[in-house]
Amino acid sequence: MSDLEPHRIVRLEEDAVVVLDQRRLPAEERELRCRTAAEVAEAIEALAVRGAPAIGVAAAYGLALAASSGEDVDAAYELLVRSRPTAVNLRWALDEMRSDPSPARARRIHEDEVARCQAMGAHAVPLFPPGSRVLTHCNAGALATGGYGTALGAIRAAWERGLVRHVRVGETRPLLQGARLTAWELEQLGIPHAVLVDSAAGALIARGEVDLVVTGADRIAANGDTANKVGTYPLAVVAARHGVPLVVVAPTTTLDPSLASGGAIPIEERDPREVTSRFPAVNPAFDVTPAELVHAIVTEHGVHRPPYADTLPRQLAVVR
Amino acid sequence: MSDLEPHRIVRLEEDAVVVLDQRRLPAEERELRCRTAAEVAEAIEALAVRGAPAIGVAAAYGLALAASSGEDVDAAYELLVRSRPTAVNLRWALDEMRSDPSPARARRIHEDEVARCQAMGAHAVPLFPPGSRVLTHCNAGALATGGYGTALGAIRAAWERGLVRHVRVGETRPLLQGARLTAWELEQLGIPHAVLVDSAAGALIARGEVDLVVTGADRIAANGDTANKVGTYPLAVVAARHGVPLVVVAPTTTLDPSLASGGAIPIEERDPREVTSRFPAVNPAFDVTPAELVHAIVTEHGVHRPPYADTLPRQLAVVR
Repeated sequence: MSDLEPHRIVRLEEDAVVVLDQRRLPAEERELRCRTAAEVAEAIEALAVRGAPAIGVAAAYGLALAASSGEDVDAAYELLVRSRPTAVNLRWALDEMRSDPSPARARRIHEDEVARCQAMGAHAVPLFPPGSRVLTHCNAGALATGGYGTALGAIRAAWERGLVRHVRVGETRPLLQGARLTAWELEQLGIPHAVLVDSAAGALIARGEVDLVVTGADRIAANGDTANKVGTYPLAVVAARHGVPLVVVAPTTTLDPSLASGGAIPIEERDPREVTSRFPAVNPAFDVTPAELVHAIVTEHGVHRPPYADTLPRQLAVVR
Repeated sequence: MSDLEPHRIVRLEEDAVVVLDQRRLPAEERELRCRTAAEVAEAIEALAVRGAPAIGVAAAYGLALAASSGEDVDAAYELLVRSRPTAVNLRWALDEMRSDPSPARARRIHEDEVARCQAMGAHAVPLFPPGSRVLTHCNAGALATGGYGTALGAIRAAWERGLVRHVRVGETRPLLQGARLTAWELEQLGIPHAVLVDSAAGALIARGEVDLVVTGADRIAANGDTANKVGTYPLAVVAARHGVPLVVVAPTTTLDPSLASGGAIPIEERDPREVTSRFPAVNPAFDVTPAELVHAIVTEHGVHRPPYADTLPRQLAVVR
């Protein structure tokens, strides 16, 4: 029993969808009670809930709430689907819910999401040598997925089997998902951890203090090229130079077989004011790590090794 | 005539040493008037003046002020030398001043420091291809040296000759010397610039948007291994992967021929609360870039190329 049970991240109650407000973490662990589909949509827009799977789960609960409280389900669908236009999980979950907007269906979507993470975690365990000193970046944890997590789920699974000595977390500028959310999750789980500025990861790896780098993924091309939070690519390059494996943990919904390679992955350029509002700034949100720097990709189906064009699952992802 | 003349950074007036308070930049350009040697020492301790050469200059002016206003010169020396115990320039400048604590001697120390930077800048110019898109890290500028700067002095010299298209600056977490000080200096000089989070440098280099990486150095071993602000090493590794040259600009006072290689350079571990006070943190202040990743080292004597053990000046540095 951990303090990070899925119902703590997001759950459906009789009169509300209750989410842990991620904007206030780690300073405050405050729950946000959304009593209508519109309030769930607001919570998603305002980033109180973030992470594609967690958004899908919250929206599914939102539609179930609308149905059970007599709201117009079609109107609720429209509100929710517009709350984060680029999130593919969101549309998929809402389409599932439209044909059966029951609390039971929404809870199954949530359970499936967590089960998928647990499967990834179990598959990833053999990649952790005993006493692993792990480095991760950004937040690919329970908060982002509605429970357990992808990269952080793998770390958790390995920790529970006694394989992890400690975890180092890049703070993940500009939005500090590492220093705010991942460090908080590790604290909740009782896993020894320390935060570092993103640019100090190279010093740690060079000093031989990292055995394994584990990250999530935003999108993976057919050849294994991986787009993830900006900063993953330099981590991968330095890790490769020192023979430290980089393992990517991500569900098959992240695979995009329509993209031959990473060059085709569009990179979102975000508001420069996230970096500084005093001077001009550039703010790419993601970078692309070429497949040759990725030691293994772990999905809910297992561990995939290079050459990824042959080993990654070829079916279109569930969500697309 | 630029807005970054040396007297603006630090100068001696009849009754005070006046420094531009670097703690308040870029929000406020406030001068701090230090009316006694003790006040100069306080300004150094409190980081109102930072950067080894700038500290040396401020202390020299502090001793001249003490002498001209009838303070006890030996007591002033002791106060000033203790204000930043590890700064070798500080002790050297104060020892010079003790035998001749005149304003003229202090001003010559200041002028020599700036002239050394200008010499580095002139030597570095041929390393900039026309239209250079330059990336730098931390602050190795006029603020750190009392005028002109090392890495930023080289960029300035190349800009004045029409060779620089724009400069990208890593914000330099945790203390943000890039986002606060370097961006401010570039703004003062009218050089087009943009700030980025440190971990986004890899994305920029991979996209082919950087022609040259230019940094300062904290300490350089006999073989050319270079310790500099944490984050320089990952920059160097990614730059090398993409064939982008990394140029180090630093005075011979930075060379330490007593150290055979970078492994012998001690790395300061700073207060983890600079990173976060909410969670445990690790905070190495510097990292070491191996000489094989350094395209050239520019000192006031010229451009030095690999193998550095043969080409770096062998005389002991002036300061040591």
